[in-house]
Amino acid sequence: MKKYSEMTKDELKAEYEIIKAGFEEAKAKGLKLNMARGLPSAEQLDMEADFFNTLNPTVDFHSELGIDCRNYGELTGIHEARQLMADMMEVSPEEIIVFGNSSLNIMFDTVARSMQFGVLGSTPWNKLDKVKFLCPVPGYDRHFAITELFGIEMINIPMDDNGPDMDMVEKYVNSDPAVKGIWCVPKYSNPTGVTYSDEVVRRFANLKPAAEDFRIYWDNAYTIHHLYNGKEDILLEILAECKKAGNPNMVWKFCSTSKVTFPGSGIAALAASEENLADVKRILTIQTIGHDKLNQLRHVRYFKNIEGMHEHMKKHADIIRPKFELVISILERDLAPLNIGSWTHPNGGYFVSFDAPTGCAKRIVGLCKEAGVTLTGAGATFPYKKDPNDSNIRIAPTFPPIQELEQALNIFTLCVRLAAAEQILDEK
Amino acid sequence: MKKYSEMTKDELKAEYEIIKAGFEEAKAKGLKLNMARGLPSAEQLDMEADFFNTLNPTVDFHSELGIDCRNYGELTGIHEARQLMADMMEVSPEEIIVFGNSSLNIMFDTVARSMQFGVLGSTPWNKLDKVKFLCPVPGYDRHFAITELFGIEMINIPMDDNGPDMDMVEKYVNSDPAVKGIWCVPKYSNPTGVTYSDEVVRRFANLKPAAEDFRIYWDNAYTIHHLYNGKEDILLEILAECKKAGNPNMVWKFCSTSKVTFPGSGIAALAASEENLADVKRILTIQTIGHDKLNQLRHVRYFKNIEGMHEHMKKHADIIRPKFELVISILERDLAPLNIGSWTHPNGGYFVSFDAPTGCAKRIVGLCKEAGVTLTGAGATFPYKKDPNDSNIRIAPTFPPIQELEQALNIFTLCVRLAAAEQILDEK
Repeated sequence: MKKYSEMTKDELKAEYEIIKAGFEEAKAKGLKLNMARGLPSAEQLDMEADFFNTLNPTVDFHSELGIDCRNYGELTGIHEARQLMADMMEVSPEEIIVFGNSSLNIMFDTVARSMQFGVLGSTPWNKLDKVKFLCPVPGYDRHFAITELFGIEMINIPMDDNGPDMDMVEKYVNSDPAVKGIWCVPKYSNPTGVTYSDEVVRRFANLKPAAEDFRIYWDNAYTIHHLYNGKEDILLEILAECKKAGNPNMVWKFCSTSKVTFPGSGIAALAASEENLADVKRILTIQTIGHDKLNQLRHVRYFKNIEGMHEHMKKHADIIRPKFELVISILERDLAPLNIGSWTHPNGGYFVSFDAPTGCAKRIVGLCKEAGVTLTGAGATFPYKKDPNDSNIRIAPTFPPIQELEQALNIFTLCVRLAAAEQILDEK
Repeated sequence: MKKYSEMTKDELKAEYEIIKAGFEEAKAKGLKLNMARGLPSAEQLDMEADFFNTLNPTVDFHSELGIDCRNYGELTGIHEARQLMADMMEVSPEEIIVFGNSSLNIMFDTVARSMQFGVLGSTPWNKLDKVKFLCPVPGYDRHFAITELFGIEMINIPMDDNGPDMDMVEKYVNSDPAVKGIWCVPKYSNPTGVTYSDEVVRRFANLKPAAEDFRIYWDNAYTIHHLYNGKEDILLEILAECKKAGNPNMVWKFCSTSKVTFPGSGIAALAASEENLADVKRILTIQTIGHDKLNQLRHVRYFKNIEGMHEHMKKHADIIRPKFELVISILERDLAPLNIGSWTHPNGGYFVSFDAPTGCAKRIVGLCKEAGVTLTGAGATFPYKKDPNDSNIRIAPTFPPIQELEQALNIFTLCVRLAAAEQILDEK
């Protein structure tokens, strides 16, 4: 098949009519398919059945150190849960606070705390004229929503296959004291699937921030979420690198078991230097009576240790890998020959990132919606929901059953072709 | 036995020597007893064994409305959990958001949100020169810790058997726009056990606040925590009264199942007008991906409905009632004849409030500590930990086994007598 760019106007018009007819046909089916959010599928959740056998009336509810997990106490989490999360986050248990069910909530609270109380004795950000965050793009919409809500100015930082553009990051961080943070999903990044290279991580660790309260917001959401056994990306551990570089306090690490056990019923943790954590605890001890220790106990008893968690993640991979492969194969089949758009080939995480021809993303998402396929909103992967190229679309393939996913993808590529053809015809 | 006030100096000296010897003897035992915090006992927690059978691999994890509780979604809680908490809090499910495990965390976040974002469109409190809260005293130390942390000025409001001094409350609230809140534990109050009278509740509902963003912080922690079957205190429902008075937005209600199921692993909820809740949701949707729906499901399946909860609370009462009765009987036995101090006789809740002779509370708590009995710090029940009379001590009898409680109480009354005798001798 000819590439669109090489077709004559008449050829393209003919092609357009064919796709349009296919689109109308798809629309008439009245489908309701969803590829919008990174949700585990029912099949993944069903695997977890034994999780609920870990705590039952016959077990002891005391932690290894003798804490009755059914009562108040242990603000930073029971010892063995701190150990498990420490192993997951590649730090020591002393560098961990186990929180509730949502790492996003920890991130929100970390920003809120900095606004209200400052960071390790710095001026509360609320008292400053201007606070800025760097935002590698495309990125995670919920990060950007937090900073937008607090009135923090967001600055786009382009990403490539190694991570964010570090020349730009260094320029901003090392010169502008209003730059207080950067949002990172450093492994199997949301949505691109990129894992930051060793050099990028080392350059992060060696930043010389103009602001003493600058922090890297390291949301390692997909740290153990590999798709391929034997083809795992490796990410250098940032806290150790920061220590080596003499910047032990420069990073907050976030993580959760939302996509390991259950979204909304997992456990989340914050990792940071002990000095940073002491500052957090000062507030936390007033904020809450502590987090759910029975759920911590459930997790520890279910996985036993980090090896148990890794084994478990292989089962998740077995379920979702075919979905990722299907996405890629349909994109390759339908779009590669036409030279429309580009897409990522992640080794882990929850997303495939699709770049449509400039100016086509909104139109594609709109067309998909018409045909019953819900996608993440175009622009969502950029601060202020503004994709300067109107190009990026995040595909979340994990939730739908594979048959539905195939239907949805067929409609998606149809809509991409339709939008691309429209655009070229408009220009001719 | 003669009252201390009626003894001659020599008589009191002789009495002092006897108590002092008893105290030294107690000290020599090297006991470690704790009456500091309102913790349920292991016996209470053991009752909950069946709780863990409610979710197991054989049950369905879908809510009544078909939500898979193991996945993301339902920011405000699953329908049946909202219904259960609505029944517990005597409002409608539309007036409920189910949160995580800690009502204290909801209170903290409510204050934090008001500081940062204002309340229903009002100026964020951070932008005001002065924010004040009224604090009925004695009260709950963790409330005061929150307002102190945010730099909110706290004003003591005396309590009597009907609740806070409403003349004073009306004077402050209706005239001073800097007064933005009042902390209330309206039923089986912490620590006095007082339940606000109907008149007090109605006067609350009919306040005419100078500040549009004034809110009553109604921490109904002990709403179903009766000690006596057939002798329950009745509290007028404040949200309904506020609506009647044309003040539907004036109250935040807080509640949790911390002392119904498990401290730290219960579910907590916020009740308020739908307009207030919409304002909360606007922020909450950015703050978190939602709360633990599996734990919501556990609670609903365990209790079935509010009647199940009430029945369950009777079992708690059966365990803790003898402890309260023991406290009162030892105080009556050891202190009433000497006319030293006064104490409450609560029908519910978790505390007995003891008022020592003016100027003796710190000394008594210190003496108890020497003899191995940990009490809530003297002053803790007042803002800034400053009890102007150095008189109030909060006794938390629920946690220790009854034999230990008896030992601890015997030491407590000994220390009260010692401190009182010392004080009178000093003055003679």
